Amino acid sequence: MKISPLGDRVVLKSAEVEETTKSGIILTGNSKEKPVYSEVVAVGPGAVVDGKKVPMEVKVGQKVIYSKYAGTEVKFGEDEYTIVKQGDILAVVE
Amino acid sequence: MKISPLGDRVVLKSAEVEETTKSGIILTGNSKEKPVYSEVVAVGPGAVVDGKKVPMEVKVGQKVIYSKYAGTEVKFGEDEYTIVKQGDILAVVE
Amino acid sequence: MKISPLGDRVVLKSAEVEETTKSGIILTGNSKEKPVYSEVVAVGPGAVVDGKKVPMEVKVGQKVIYSKYAGTEVKFGEDEYTIVKQGDILAVVE
Amino acid sequence: MKISPLGDRVVLKSAEVEETTKSGIILTGNSKEKPVYSEVVAVGPGAVVDGKKVPMEVKVGQKVIYSKYAGTEVKFGEDEYTIVKQGDILAVVE
Amino acid sequence: MKISPLGDRVVLKSAEVEETTKSGIILTGNSKEKPVYSEVVAVGPGAVVDGKKVPMEVKVGQKVIYSKYAGTEVKFGEDEYTIVKQGDILAVVE
Amino acid sequence: MKISPLGDRVVLKSAEVEETTKSGIILTGNSKEKPVYSEVVAVGPGAVVDGKKVPMEVKVGQKVIYSKYAGTEVKFGEDEYTIVKQGDILAVVE
Amino acid sequence: MKISPLGDRVVLKSAEVEETTKSGIILTGNSKEKPVYSEVVAVGPGAVVDGKKVPMEVKVGQKVIYSKYAGTEVKFGEDEYTIVKQGDILAVVE
Repeated sequence: MKISPLGDRVVLKSAEVEETTKSGIILTGNSKEKPVYSEVVAVGPGAVVDGKKVPMEVKVGQKVIYSKYAGTEVKFGEDEYTIVKQGDILAVVE
Repeated sequence: MKISPLGDRVVLKSAEVEETTKSGIILTGNSKEKPVYSEVVAVGPGAVVDGKKVPMEVKVGQKVIYSKYAGTEVKFGEDEYTIVKQGDILAVVE
Repeated sequence: MKISPLGDRVVLKSAEVEETTKSGIILTGNSKEKPVYSEVVAVGPGAVVDGKKVPMEVKVGQKVIYSKYAGTEVKFGEDEYTIVKQGDILAVVE
Repeated sequence: MKISPLGDRVVLKSAEVEETTKSGIILTGNSKEKPVYSEVVAVGPGAVVDGKKVPMEVKVGQKVIYSKYAGTEVKFGEDEYTIVKQGDILAVVE
Repeated sequence: MKISPLGDRVVLKSAEVEETTKSGIILTGNSKEKPVYSEVVAVGPGAVVDGKKVPMEVKVGQKVIYSKYAGTEVKFGEDEYTIVKQGDILAVVE
Repeated sequence: MKISPLGDRVVLKSAEVEETTKSGIILTGNSKEKPVYSEVVAVGPGAVVDGKKVPMEVKVGQKVIYSKYAGTEVKFGEDEYTIVKQGDILAVVE
Repeated sequence: MKISPLGDRVVLKSAEVEETTKSGIILTGNSKEKPVYSEVVAVGPGAVVDGKKVPMEVKVGQKVIYSKYAGTEVKFGEDEYTIVKQGDILAVVE
């Protein structure tokens, strides 16, 4: 089974957040139960603006931080995915 | 009887969600009573932007995930349909 | 007496919804007291965008489904009409 | 004394609604205390869009239906007027 | 002392409303404590749209009706002024 | 230490309002605890619109009235400053 | 580990605010627990407007004041970062 996001949407897979590691990302405040550190698993073809397709900036396999509250969650079997617009991705983490 | 959606609207037929299958899509949280996994049954001609018709990306027969809260529900006989704008469709599932 | 809608507005006449017929449209949820299945009785000249009149897509006599909550209701004698913008019409039913 | 509306505004004079006449307009629901059937008494010069004056579509003397909730009410002596934007006028009644 | 409004703003001086005169403007409803009938005392240079200054339509000395709720009130000595955008002025009264 | 506002922002220093002087500006209503009469102490380079820098209209040293509720307050040592967008400045007072 | 912000986003590191120093920045009101005086640690490539990348104005190492309420907080090990859009940065402090 395969998810192909439309437009400038991106499918993200929640990454486990190691709360005790010094180099891990730990989210503050009330976003604890919803980690915003994720891996890109599928990227849409890009939004169409004035008849031209705007290319996407993120790539499959990158680790990203996205805006909490953004996105729609779906579940395939045991895995949870989140579909967000690229504009809700704040930064790529390397 | 036939429904012809206007503009960039799409008519969707709710698909049964197999909650116990590993490869099935199961929606999390409070969207349980409203499955967002649907089949495209009719596609509008596309929105008109600056006098040009923008072609549609989804096709009849595709299975799609759409944004919960989006769309208007209508009932023909025993079947339930949802009319959404194409922009509310998040991804195509194959 | 005659109603001429302005811009891209459309005058609709509420159609009786046969709730027991299999091929009739029955609206779900809390939209029961306001049927959204209607007949087009008058069509405006079209909105003016950048100095050009955008032609209308719906025609007098068509049966349409429109977005619940949209429109303003008026009464002529015994009949009830609803004036909506064409953008609030979701689909044509044949 | 004379009211000259600015831009695309229109001055309307509330028309008496004959509730018992078959051909009269009777408004449904909670709009009873504010009749939306009115006569155009003054028309603005039109809005200026991109440096060009967009001509007005309604004329003094026409009877119109306008969107309830729209407009600002003013009183000259014994008469009540309502100033609305032309975009809040739904239809011309003849 | 002199107030020079910026952009498309206008400085208005509240005019006394003669509530008993037949030709006076008397505001209905809950706008009684804030008369919307005012005199223009200063006019801004006009808003700049796409690099061009859009000329103002109202002139110092004109009596105008403006949208209630609009504007910011300031007091010079004993007089009260209201600064509004020209778009909040509904009509010129002569 | 020096504050350089970005874009079309302006740094204002609250001016003391002489409430008893006839020519002083006294704000009405609930804006008493936040005087809106201020002196311009720094001006940004101007906003960039369509790739062009739009020049600023206010100058350092001018006394201005700005929209209450607008701006962010900062404190340097003993002085209080407010950073507003130029569009929130209503008028220059001379 | 490295954070690369997307578009016109900027990564900020909260700076300690010396509340007792005369030349320090002390924020008024209810923003005390969230200092808005920060150091730029990473700058995005700039937003894309009409197919052109708009260059960024702030630079790594600058001290900035940003709008309270703006931004998303992330934690790397012991340090806290905030990711904001450049438009939420009010001023550069030197």
